[in-house]
Amino acid sequence: MSSTNALEVLIQALRRLPGVGVKSAQRMAFHLMQHDRAGAEALSAALHDAAQNVHHCARCHTFTEDDICSTCLDPERDASRLCVVETPADQSALERTGAFKGLYFVLMGRLSPLDGIGPKEIGLHKLMERASDGVVQEVILATNFNAEGEATAHVLSEALKSRGLHVTRLARGVPVGSELEYVDLSTIAHALVDRR
Amino acid sequence: MSSTNALEVLIQALRRLPGVGVKSAQRMAFHLMQHDRAGAEALSAALHDAAQNVHHCARCHTFTEDDICSTCLDPERDASRLCVVETPADQSALERTGAFKGLYFVLMGRLSPLDGIGPKEIGLHKLMERASDGVVQEVILATNFNAEGEATAHVLSEALKSRGLHVTRLARGVPVGSELEYVDLSTIAHALVDRR
Repeated sequence: MSSTNALEVLIQALRRLPGVGVKSAQRMAFHLMQHDRAGAEALSAALHDAAQNVHHCARCHTFTEDDICSTCLDPERDASRLCVVETPADQSALERTGAFKGLYFVLMGRLSPLDGIGPKEIGLHKLMERASDGVVQEVILATNFNAEGEATAHVLSEALKSRGLHVTRLARGVPVGSELEYVDLSTIAHALVDRR
Repeated sequence: MSSTNALEVLIQALRRLPGVGVKSAQRMAFHLMQHDRAGAEALSAALHDAAQNVHHCARCHTFTEDDICSTCLDPERDASRLCVVETPADQSALERTGAFKGLYFVLMGRLSPLDGIGPKEIGLHKLMERASDGVVQEVILATNFNAEGEATAHVLSEALKSRGLHVTRLARGVPVGSELEYVDLSTIAHALVDRR
Protein backbone atom coordinates (compact mmCIF):
# COMPACT_ATOMS: atom_id res chain seq x y z
CA MET A 1 0.00 0.00 0.00
CA SER A 2 3.09 2.20 -0.08
CA SER A 3 1.89 3.49 -3.46
CA THR A 4 -0.42 6.04 -1.91
CA ASN A 5 0.44 8.14 1.06
CA ALA A 6 -3.04 9.65 1.51
CA LEU A 7 -4.51 6.16 1.90
CA GLU A 8 -1.85 5.17 4.42
CA VAL A 9 -2.51 8.34 6.45
CA LEU A 10 -6.25 7.58 6.33
CA ILE A 11 -5.71 4.00 7.57
CA GLN A 12 -3.57 5.28 10.45
CA ALA A 13 -6.19 7.93 11.32
CA LEU A 14 -9.00 5.33 11.31
CA ARG A 15 -6.97 3.23 13.77
CA ARG A 16 -7.45 5.96 16.38
CA LEU A 17 -11.12 4.98 16.58
CA PRO A 18 -11.77 2.65 19.54
CA GLY A 19 -12.01 -1.01 18.53
CA VAL A 20 -10.50 -0.51 15.08
CA GLY A 21 -7.35 -2.49 14.28
CA VAL A 22 -5.22 -2.41 11.15
CA LYS A 23 -7.40 -4.87 9.19
CA SER A 24 -10.66 -3.06 9.98
CA ALA A 25 -9.03 0.29 9.18
CA GLN A 26 -7.90 -1.04 5.78
CA ARG A 27 -11.33 -2.42 5.06
CA MET A 28 -12.98 0.89 6.02
CA ALA A 29 -10.55 2.94 3.93
CA PHE A 30 -10.95 0.71 0.85
CA HIS A 31 -14.71 0.68 1.23
CA LEU A 32 -14.90 4.48 1.41
CA MET A 33 -12.52 4.96 -1.52
CA GLN A 34 -14.14 2.33 -3.70
CA HIS A 35 -17.83 2.62 -2.88
CA ASP A 36 -18.61 5.68 -0.77
CA ARG A 37 -16.59 8.84 -1.44
CA ALA A 38 -19.62 10.91 -0.47
CA GLY A 39 -19.62 9.05 2.86
CA ALA A 40 -15.94 9.89 3.35
CA GLU A 41 -16.61 13.59 2.71
CA ALA A 42 -19.70 13.54 4.96
CA LEU A 43 -17.74 11.89 7.78
CA SER A 44 -14.88 14.34 7.31
CA ALA A 45 -17.24 17.31 7.62
CA ALA A 46 -19.11 15.79 10.58
CA LEU A 47 -15.87 15.12 12.46
CA HIS A 48 -14.59 18.64 11.91
CA ASP A 49 -17.93 20.20 12.84
CA ALA A 50 -18.27 18.13 16.03
CA ALA A 51 -14.65 18.71 17.09
CA GLN A 52 -15.12 22.46 16.66
CA ASN A 53 -18.59 22.93 18.12
CA VAL A 54 -19.35 20.21 20.67
CA HIS A 55 -18.37 20.99 24.25
CA HIS A 56 -19.66 20.38 27.76
CA CYS A 57 -22.87 21.81 29.17
CA ALA A 58 -22.00 24.31 31.91
CA ARG A 59 -24.63 22.82 34.23
CA CYS A 60 -24.81 19.07 33.64
CA HIS A 61 -21.51 18.44 31.84
CA THR A 62 -23.07 16.48 28.95
CA PHE A 63 -22.18 17.19 25.31
CA THR A 64 -23.88 20.20 23.77
CA GLU A 65 -23.29 22.87 21.15
CA ASP A 66 -24.76 25.58 23.37
CA ASP A 67 -23.54 26.92 26.71
CA ILE A 68 -26.31 25.06 28.53
CA CYS A 69 -27.97 21.98 27.02
CA SER A 70 -31.64 21.82 26.07
CA THR A 71 -32.45 19.36 28.89
CA CYS A 72 -31.07 21.72 31.56
CA LEU A 73 -32.97 24.65 30.01
CA ASP A 74 -36.30 22.77 29.79
CA PRO A 75 -38.74 24.48 32.25
CA GLU A 76 -40.95 21.35 32.25
CA ARG A 77 -38.22 19.41 34.04
CA ASP A 78 -38.38 18.71 37.78
CA ALA A 79 -35.32 20.61 39.04
CA SER A 80 -35.60 19.07 42.51
CA ARG A 81 -34.33 15.70 41.29
CA LEU A 82 -30.84 15.23 39.89
CA CYS A 83 -29.81 11.95 38.28
CA VAL A 84 -26.08 11.20 38.09
CA VAL A 85 -24.98 9.04 35.14
CA GLU A 86 -21.60 8.01 33.74
CA THR A 87 -22.04 8.84 30.05
CA PRO A 88 -24.42 10.57 27.61
CA ALA A 89 -25.33 7.07 26.36
CA ASP A 90 -26.55 6.16 29.86
CA GLN A 91 -28.49 9.44 29.98
CA SER A 92 -30.04 8.56 26.64
CA ALA A 93 -31.09 5.13 27.95
CA LEU A 94 -32.80 6.73 30.95
CA GLU A 95 -34.49 9.31 28.72
CA ARG A 96 -35.86 6.61 26.46
CA THR A 97 -37.64 4.97 29.42
CA GLY A 98 -39.73 8.13 29.78
CA ALA A 99 -39.82 7.40 33.53
CA PHE A 100 -37.64 10.30 34.70
CA LYS A 101 -38.53 13.97 34.39
CA GLY A 102 -35.77 15.46 36.52
CA LEU A 103 -32.37 16.82 35.51
CA TYR A 104 -29.05 15.09 34.96
CA PHE A 105 -25.40 15.34 35.84
CA VAL A 106 -23.09 13.46 33.50
CA LEU A 107 -19.78 12.38 35.03
CA MET A 108 -18.22 11.63 31.62
CA GLY A 109 -16.47 8.66 33.18
CA ARG A 110 -16.26 6.72 36.40
CA LEU A 111 -13.75 6.47 39.21
CA SER A 112 -10.91 4.23 38.10
CA PRO A 113 -7.77 4.89 40.13
CA LEU A 114 -5.72 2.40 38.09
CA ASP A 115 -6.40 4.48 34.96
CA GLY A 116 -5.66 7.70 36.83
CA ILE A 117 -9.32 8.73 36.92
CA GLY A 118 -9.98 10.22 40.35
CA PRO A 119 -12.70 12.45 41.84
CA LYS A 120 -11.29 15.48 39.99
CA GLU A 121 -11.55 13.84 36.56
CA ILE A 122 -15.23 12.95 37.02
CA GLY A 123 -16.01 16.46 38.26
CA LEU A 124 -16.91 15.65 41.89
CA HIS A 125 -16.42 19.27 42.92
CA LYS A 126 -18.70 20.45 40.10
CA LEU A 127 -21.36 17.91 41.07
CA MET A 128 -21.21 19.09 44.71
CA GLU A 129 -21.73 22.67 43.59
CA ARG A 130 -24.55 21.66 41.24
CA ALA A 131 -26.33 19.54 43.88
CA SER A 132 -26.03 22.29 46.52
CA ASP A 133 -27.97 24.88 44.51
CA GLY A 134 -30.79 24.81 47.06
CA VAL A 135 -33.31 23.47 44.53
CA VAL A 136 -32.08 19.88 44.30
CA GLN A 137 -33.82 17.73 46.91
CA GLU A 138 -32.75 14.27 45.83
CA VAL A 139 -29.69 12.95 44.00
CA ILE A 140 -30.31 9.65 42.20
CA LEU A 141 -27.10 7.71 41.52
CA ALA A 142 -27.43 5.84 38.21
CA THR A 143 -23.82 4.79 37.65
CA ASN A 144 -23.34 1.30 36.22
CA PHE A 145 -23.73 -1.80 38.37
CA ASN A 146 -20.21 -3.10 37.84
CA ALA A 147 -17.27 -2.77 40.23
CA GLU A 148 -16.18 0.69 39.08
CA GLY A 149 -19.71 2.06 38.85
CA GLU A 150 -20.53 0.81 42.36
CA ALA A 151 -17.32 2.30 43.76
CA THR A 152 -18.14 5.61 42.08
CA ALA A 153 -21.66 5.53 43.53
CA HIS A 154 -20.25 4.84 46.99
CA VAL A 155 -17.81 7.76 46.88
CA LEU A 156 -20.43 10.16 45.48
CA SER A 157 -22.97 8.99 48.03
CA GLU A 158 -20.62 9.66 50.96
CA ALA A 159 -19.68 13.10 49.66
CA LEU A 160 -23.27 14.12 48.89
CA LYS A 161 -24.64 12.84 52.20
CA SER A 162 -22.02 14.85 54.09
CA ARG A 163 -23.67 17.94 52.56
CA GLY A 164 -27.01 16.80 53.95
CA LEU A 165 -28.46 15.81 50.57
CA HIS A 166 -30.95 12.98 50.12
CA VAL A 167 -29.16 10.34 48.02
CA THR A 168 -30.77 7.32 46.36
CA ARG A 169 -29.50 4.57 44.04
CA LEU A 170 -31.30 2.79 41.18
CA ALA A 171 -32.85 -0.43 42.49
CA ARG A 172 -30.97 -3.68 42.04
CA GLY A 173 -33.12 -6.71 41.31
CA VAL A 174 -34.38 -9.26 38.83
CA PRO A 175 -34.59 -7.85 35.27
CA VAL A 176 -38.07 -7.63 33.74
CA GLY A 177 -38.96 -10.70 31.68
CA SER A 178 -36.34 -12.99 33.19
CA GLU A 179 -36.81 -16.44 34.72
CA LEU A 180 -35.34 -16.90 38.20
CA GLU A 181 -33.64 -20.15 37.17
CA TYR A 182 -31.38 -18.23 34.80
CA VAL A 183 -30.74 -15.09 36.87
CA ASP A 184 -27.31 -14.93 38.54
CA LEU A 185 -27.29 -15.62 42.26
CA SER A 186 -26.00 -12.29 43.53
CA THR A 187 -28.83 -10.53 41.66
CA ILE A 188 -31.38 -12.80 43.35
CA ALA A 189 -29.71 -12.21 46.72
CA HIS A 190 -29.93 -8.44 46.22
CA ALA A 191 -33.56 -8.74 45.11
CA LEU A 192 -34.33 -10.69 48.28
CA VAL A 193 -32.68 -8.11 50.54
CA ASP A 194 -34.38 -5.21 48.75
CA ARG A 195 -37.80 -6.93 48.58
CA ARG A 196 -40.79 -4.63 48.96
CA MET B 1 -28.63 12.59 22.56
CA SER B 2 -31.04 15.02 20.93
CA SER B 3 -29.26 17.81 22.79
CA THR B 4 -26.55 18.10 20.18
CA ASN B 5 -27.13 17.92 16.49
CA ALA B 6 -23.44 17.87 15.49
CA LEU B 7 -22.91 14.73 17.58
CA GLU B 8 -25.96 13.05 16.06
CA VAL B 9 -24.71 13.85 12.54
CA LEU B 10 -21.30 12.45 13.48
CA ILE B 11 -22.83 9.21 14.80
CA GLN B 12 -24.84 8.79 11.58
CA ALA B 13 -21.73 9.49 9.47
CA LEU B 14 -19.69 6.92 11.42
CA ARG B 15 -22.38 4.31 10.72
CA ARG B 16 -21.50 4.48 7.04
CA LEU B 17 -18.23 2.74 7.86
CA PRO B 18 -18.47 -1.01 7.18
CA GLY B 19 -19.05 -3.06 10.32
CA VAL B 20 -20.05 -0.09 12.48
CA GLY B 21 -23.52 -0.22 14.07
CA VAL B 22 -25.24 2.40 16.18
CA LYS B 23 -23.58 1.35 19.47
CA SER B 24 -20.08 1.33 18.00
CA ALA B 25 -20.72 4.66 16.29
CA GLN B 26 -21.84 6.19 19.62
CA ARG B 27 -18.79 4.79 21.39
CA MET B 28 -16.48 6.14 18.67
CA ALA B 29 -18.10 9.59 18.70
CA PHE B 30 -17.99 9.87 22.51
CA HIS B 31 -14.39 8.65 22.59
CA LEU B 32 -13.29 11.22 20.02
CA MET B 33 -15.18 14.07 21.71
CA GLN B 34 -14.07 13.17 25.23
CA HIS B 35 -10.51 11.93 24.76
CA ASP B 36 -9.21 12.58 21.25
CA ARG B 37 -10.31 15.78 19.53
CA ALA B 38 -6.95 15.89 17.75
CA GLY B 39 -7.73 12.41 16.41
CA ALA B 40 -11.10 13.62 15.15
CA GLU B 41 -9.48 16.51 13.33
CA ALA B 42 -6.73 14.26 11.94
CA LEU B 43 -9.28 11.74 10.68
CA SER B 44 -11.39 14.54 9.19
CA ALA B 45 -8.39 15.88 7.26
CA ALA B 46 -7.25 12.40 6.17
CA LEU B 47 -10.73 11.52 4.86
CA HIS B 48 -11.02 14.73 2.89
CA ASP B 49 -7.50 14.42 1.50
CA ALA B 50 -7.99 10.79 0.45
CA ALA B 51 -11.44 11.41 -1.06
CA GLN B 52 -10.00 14.26 -3.11
CA ASN B 53 -6.68 12.80 -4.19
CA VAL B 54 -6.85 9.01 -4.31
CA HIS B 55 -7.94 7.51 -7.63
CA HIS B 56 -7.17 4.47 -9.74
CA CYS B 57 -3.82 3.80 -11.45
CA ALA B 58 -4.32 4.05 -15.22
CA ARG B 59 -2.36 0.82 -15.77
CA CYS B 60 -3.07 -1.55 -12.87
CA HIS B 61 -6.23 -0.03 -11.42
CA THR B 62 -4.96 0.05 -7.81
CA PHE B 63 -5.34 3.14 -5.60
CA THR B 64 -2.79 5.88 -6.22
CA GLU B 65 -2.43 9.64 -6.01
CA ASP B 66 -0.52 9.79 -9.30
CA ASP B 67 -1.67 8.90 -12.81
CA ILE B 68 0.35 5.70 -12.72
CA CYS B 69 1.32 4.04 -9.44
CA SER B 70 4.90 3.62 -8.25
CA THR B 71 4.80 -0.17 -8.74
CA CYS B 72 3.82 0.14 -12.40
CA LEU B 73 6.54 2.77 -12.95
CA ASP B 74 9.29 0.75 -11.24
CA PRO B 75 11.83 -0.21 -13.96
CA GLU B 76 13.19 -3.04 -11.74
CA ARG B 77 9.91 -4.92 -12.10
CA ASP B 78 9.56 -7.86 -14.48
CA ALA B 79 6.95 -6.56 -16.94
CA SER B 80 6.52 -9.98 -18.56
CA ARG B 81 4.56 -11.29 -15.57
CA LEU B 82 1.21 -9.86 -14.54
CA CYS B 83 -0.45 -10.93 -11.32
CA VAL B 84 -4.24 -10.42 -11.05
CA VAL B 85 -5.56 -9.78 -7.52
CA GLU B 86 -8.96 -8.78 -6.13
CA THR B 87 -7.99 -5.91 -3.82
CA PRO B 88 -5.04 -3.67 -2.87
CA ALA B 89 -4.94 -5.62 0.43
CA ASP B 90 -4.30 -8.85 -1.52
CA GLN B 91 -1.62 -7.06 -3.54
CA SER B 92 -0.05 -5.89 -0.30
CA ALA B 93 -0.01 -9.48 1.05
CA LEU B 94 1.77 -10.70 -2.10
CA GLU B 95 4.24 -7.82 -1.91
CA ARG B 96 5.10 -8.64 1.68
CA THR B 97 6.14 -12.17 0.68
CA GLY B 98 8.91 -10.65 -1.46
CA ALA B 99 8.48 -13.62 -3.81
CA PHE B 100 7.00 -11.76 -6.78
CA LYS B 101 8.83 -9.14 -8.82
CA GLY B 102 6.33 -8.75 -11.68
CA LEU B 103 3.49 -6.27 -12.12
CA TYR B 104 -0.10 -6.32 -10.89
CA PHE B 105 -3.62 -5.80 -12.09
CA VAL B 106 -6.12 -5.08 -9.32
CA LEU B 107 -9.74 -6.02 -10.11
CA MET B 108 -11.11 -3.95 -7.19
CA GLY B 109 -13.68 -6.67 -6.63
CA ARG B 110 -14.68 -10.11 -7.85
CA LEU B 111 -17.40 -11.48 -10.06
CA SER B 112 -20.60 -11.64 -8.05
CA PRO B 113 -23.65 -11.70 -10.34
CA LEU B 114 -26.07 -11.66 -7.38
CA ASP B 115 -24.62 -8.31 -6.28
CA GLY B 116 -24.67 -7.01 -9.85
CA ILE B 117 -20.90 -7.23 -10.22
CA GLY B 118 -20.20 -8.54 -13.71
CA PRO B 119 -17.16 -8.58 -16.04
CA LYS B 120 -17.57 -4.87 -16.73
CA GLU B 121 -17.43 -3.90 -13.03
CA ILE B 122 -14.15 -5.75 -12.44
CA GLY B 123 -12.63 -4.20 -15.58
CA LEU B 124 -12.29 -7.37 -17.69
CA HIS B 125 -11.93 -5.29 -20.85
CA LYS B 126 -9.19 -3.19 -19.27
CA LEU B 127 -7.36 -6.32 -18.10
CA MET B 128 -7.53 -7.78 -21.64
CA GLU B 129 -6.02 -4.61 -23.04
CA ARG B 130 -3.36 -4.52 -20.32
CA ALA B 131 -2.41 -8.20 -20.80
CA SER B 132 -2.25 -7.85 -24.60
CA ASP B 133 0.46 -5.16 -24.56
CA GLY B 134 2.94 -7.56 -26.18
CA VAL B 135 5.26 -7.52 -23.15
CA VAL B 136 3.18 -9.67 -20.76
CA GLN B 137 4.09 -13.36 -21.19
CA GLU B 138 2.27 -14.87 -18.23
CA VAL B 139 -0.84 -13.87 -16.31
CA ILE B 140 -0.92 -15.24 -12.74
CA LEU B 141 -4.43 -15.41 -11.31
CA ALA B 142 -4.30 -14.69 -7.57
CA THR B 143 -7.98 -14.18 -6.79
CA ASN B 144 -9.20 -15.66 -3.52
CA PHE B 145 -9.81 -19.38 -3.11
CA ASN B 146 -13.47 -19.09 -2.19
CA ALA B 147 -16.43 -19.66 -4.53
CA GLU B 148 -16.53 -16.15 -6.00
CA GLY B 149 -12.75 -15.90 -6.34
CA GLU B 150 -12.59 -19.27 -8.12
CA ALA B 151 -15.44 -18.30 -10.46
CA THR B 152 -13.65 -15.04 -11.24
CA ALA B 153 -10.41 -16.92 -11.94
CA HIS B 154 -12.27 -19.30 -14.27
CA VAL B 155 -13.87 -16.51 -16.30
CA LEU B 156 -10.62 -14.53 -16.53
CA SER B 157 -8.69 -17.65 -17.47
CA GLU B 158 -11.04 -18.48 -20.35
CA ALA B 159 -10.96 -14.93 -21.67
CA LEU B 160 -7.17 -14.59 -21.40
CA LYS B 161 -6.46 -18.00 -22.96
CA SER B 162 -8.67 -17.08 -25.93
CA ARG B 163 -6.15 -14.29 -26.59
CA GLY B 164 -3.36 -16.86 -26.60
CA LEU B 165 -1.91 -15.74 -23.27
CA HIS B 166 -0.18 -18.13 -20.85
CA VAL B 167 -2.38 -18.22 -17.73
CA THR B 168 -1.43 -19.73 -14.35
CA ARG B 169 -3.13 -19.90 -10.94
CA LEU B 170 -1.60 -19.78 -7.44
CA ALA B 171 -1.05 -23.34 -6.18
CA ARG B 172 -3.65 -24.90 -3.92
CA GLY B 173 -2.29 -27.14 -1.19
CA VAL B 174 -1.50 -27.67 2.46
CA PRO B 175 -0.59 -24.40 4.26
CA VAL B 176 2.94 -24.13 5.63
CA GLY B 177 3.18 -25.20 9.27
CA SER B 178 -0.07 -27.16 9.34
CA GLU B 179 -0.63 -30.74 10.49
CA LEU B 180 -2.47 -32.98 8.01
CA GLU B 181 -4.84 -34.22 10.71
CA TYR B 182 -6.32 -30.72 11.03
CA VAL B 183 -6.33 -29.67 7.36
CA ASP B 184 -9.73 -29.78 5.66
CA LEU B 185 -10.25 -32.69 3.31
CA SER B 186 -10.77 -30.82 0.05
CA THR B 187 -7.44 -29.03 0.59
CA ILE B 188 -5.70 -32.41 1.06
CA ALA B 189 -7.48 -33.75 -2.04
CA HIS B 190 -6.25 -30.78 -4.08
CA ALA B 191 -2.74 -31.16 -2.69
CA LEU B 192 -2.78 -34.83 -3.74
CA VAL B 193 -3.92 -34.03 -7.29
CA ASP B 194 -1.39 -31.21 -7.66
CA ARG B 195 1.52 -33.17 -6.05
CA ARG B 196 4.94 -32.54 -7.50
